[in-house]
Amino acid sequence: MTARPLLRVKPREGKRARAGAPWLFSNEIEMQKTLAPGTIVNVSFDDGRPLGTGFFNPKSLIAVRLVDPALDVVLDEDFFAAKFARALALRDALYASPFYRLVHAEGDLLPGLVIDRFGDTVTLQITTAGMEALKDTLIAALKRVLDPARIIIRADAPARSLEGLDSYVDAAGSGRISVLENGVIYFADAGAGQKTGWYYDQRDNRAFMAALSKRKSVLDAYSYVGGFGLAAAKAGAKTVVGLESSAGAVAYAEEAANTGHLAAKFLKTDVFEELERLGAAKQTFDVVNADPPPFVKARKDLETGAKAYRKLAKLAAAVTAPEGILFIASCSHNIAMDRFALECAAGIARAGRKARLIRMAGAGPDHPIHPMLPESAYLKALVYALD
Amino acid sequence: MTARPLLRVKPREGKRARAGAPWLFSNEIEMQKTLAPGTIVNVSFDDGRPLGTGFFNPKSLIAVRLVDPALDVVLDEDFFAAKFARALALRDALYASPFYRLVHAEGDLLPGLVIDRFGDTVTLQITTAGMEALKDTLIAALKRVLDPARIIIRADAPARSLEGLDSYVDAAGSGRISVLENGVIYFADAGAGQKTGWYYDQRDNRAFMAALSKRKSVLDAYSYVGGFGLAAAKAGAKTVVGLESSAGAVAYAEEAANTGHLAAKFLKTDVFEELERLGAAKQTFDVVNADPPPFVKARKDLETGAKAYRKLAKLAAAVTAPEGILFIASCSHNIAMDRFALECAAGIARAGRKARLIRMAGAGPDHPIHPMLPESAYLKALVYALD
Repeated sequence: MTARPLLRVKPREGKRARAGAPWLFSNEIEMQKTLAPGTIVNVSFDDGRPLGTGFFNPKSLIAVRLVDPALDVVLDEDFFAAKFARALALRDALYASPFYRLVHAEGDLLPGLVIDRFGDTVTLQITTAGMEALKDTLIAALKRVLDPARIIIRADAPARSLEGLDSYVDAAGSGRISVLENGVIYFADAGAGQKTGWYYDQRDNRAFMAALSKRKSVLDAYSYVGGFGLAAAKAGAKTVVGLESSAGAVAYAEEAANTGHLAAKFLKTDVFEELERLGAAKQTFDVVNADPPPFVKARKDLETGAKAYRKLAKLAAAVTAPEGILFIASCSHNIAMDRFALECAAGIARAGRKARLIRMAGAGPDHPIHPMLPESAYLKALVYALD
Repeated sequence: MTARPLLRVKPREGKRARAGAPWLFSNEIEMQKTLAPGTIVNVSFDDGRPLGTGFFNPKSLIAVRLVDPALDVVLDEDFFAAKFARALALRDALYASPFYRLVHAEGDLLPGLVIDRFGDTVTLQITTAGMEALKDTLIAALKRVLDPARIIIRADAPARSLEGLDSYVDAAGSGRISVLENGVIYFADAGAGQKTGWYYDQRDNRAFMAALSKRKSVLDAYSYVGGFGLAAAKAGAKTVVGLESSAGAVAYAEEAANTGHLAAKFLKTDVFEELERLGAAKQTFDVVNADPPPFVKARKDLETGAKAYRKLAKLAAAVTAPEGILFIASCSHNIAMDRFALECAAGIARAGRKARLIRMAGAGPDHPIHPMLPESAYLKALVYALD
């Protein structure tokens, strides 16, 4: 047996953990501030009943992240190899090609770890001190289960600062990746920039919108490396225009269009300004996709961000043709679906348009959610059919 | 101009309607109790600004259902033909075959009217006094747009009593229908029973679960006329067992299985009792679908119904094989997604199972939602991947 530290939940605290949630907040436990961030601990209730094995971080509001309901579970290569094999089996059941999110943190019972797979390349995103301390073990387990040709470490998510972690990237040379999704080959850089290469979360939403884009004029606002736009082009869109502020992303989108012989035009521009310009010129598109970066980065930004979503909905509705389709998404954790939906509805109404909401969706099934954290489903996607 | 009654919103009331919601509650307006249920009215704010044309019912808590933002809109055959044509255009864009919900009440800007299409048969469900009074106009408009061979009137939804309406069915002879969905031909009776023939709302969820059912053993709890079970059989399930309390529904499911040469067995049984029996016998299935009738029929039933969902989740998880997939749905308006998800999570945990939530979904896009009523999305479907 290891001489593993034991943390106790305070009397009458830990109600959600008792019901099965994987987190304990710092006010719920008897803190042991001398333990290093990322220490593996046993956790029990004040009456001695075990709660499980977890990671402890005295610097984080989420002080304990539970990994297993048993005490003294050894978090070694075997443990993680079994978890990765389980995650892989689920994706094998869901997808025909090896392009997906392989591990989605708490959703795959692996708090602080996100792994995306791009064929024989994988990216590892580590956001907790517990996982950071086990990095070598994680890589060994991953090699055993998947043996990838290249592992790119992304350890630069803003959330790391909440755990007292520094920020770094290890791209092992070039971070360039190819992604096969919905029959399109995309290109991106998984090793650089704020964005982490590719967003598999919108795969099903891209497919849904592409199916409605045949013979239609399509606008892809915040086109990034061409996700929605090129899926629409592949599905037979009449025209595709993408708007994107990053020149690097535009270059990747154009390369993918050329490689796949897909007709699509991408403009490097400020999206809000371009939407206003198009609206003033009364230019419209049969299908409009708006997949912006998060407008509500922190709770304190809720009202400002909500207004920005409303404005985006108004501008996007104004450039949607009569009987057109409008897609709007939010990837902000900090705005709930109902609030987001009401802001979008208000924006569409201010554009003087009637609408019906035909789809409310989240991320695809390779982004599982911990059953006790349904509110952690960060992606909210809405599709409206306008009059 | 018609001498149409004018209703006024009380001062400082009607906040949601002001933002675009299609309802006014009886406490929000200056009531005119002498007007007949279903009277077409103009509605304005207390300062005289117009709010629109709507149906008024002094007997209903939802006293006004708005139909159009303009005053004095004539609700004649032309008006409804245009609405039906718009609804039809959207479904034509979404589906290759004429099997879908054609009109979804408020979601299609037609409060109190639901139309399902089964090839050349359509069913009309009327739940408000306003639509009931216009029944002949609706049928004339429907014939102009679609010219169906058979129109079945379902005017027996419990919600009609809230509008002071009586209950009747006009099946024009036999109510038997054939339904083509996800490549399977099903049979049902659209003219009889509590259930109204077929539930298109689960189409996408049936497709999702069928895709995971290839070479798997599948349990379809509350199988009704075979929706989930036969979709799984068609997708290549190893075995399919359905559990259903209605002998009539079982007969339709068996007929569809025979007609389509699909291997599936349906048992007439009490579902809770059978799940308990299977669990006690330690029988398990790779894929378990549980699509029960509403457990929370009224707000006052929330706690009782929530417990029933928890119990169902526990029993269903107990008969799900290791690394199996579990689908649970609620069609209760009166339980919110987050509460439903937590009850299911608690039930799964009580069965001693770890799980990841891989899908949170609602009804398909032929069940549009009014943009200002996102909470009216009654269908909640959850899919878990168990360990």
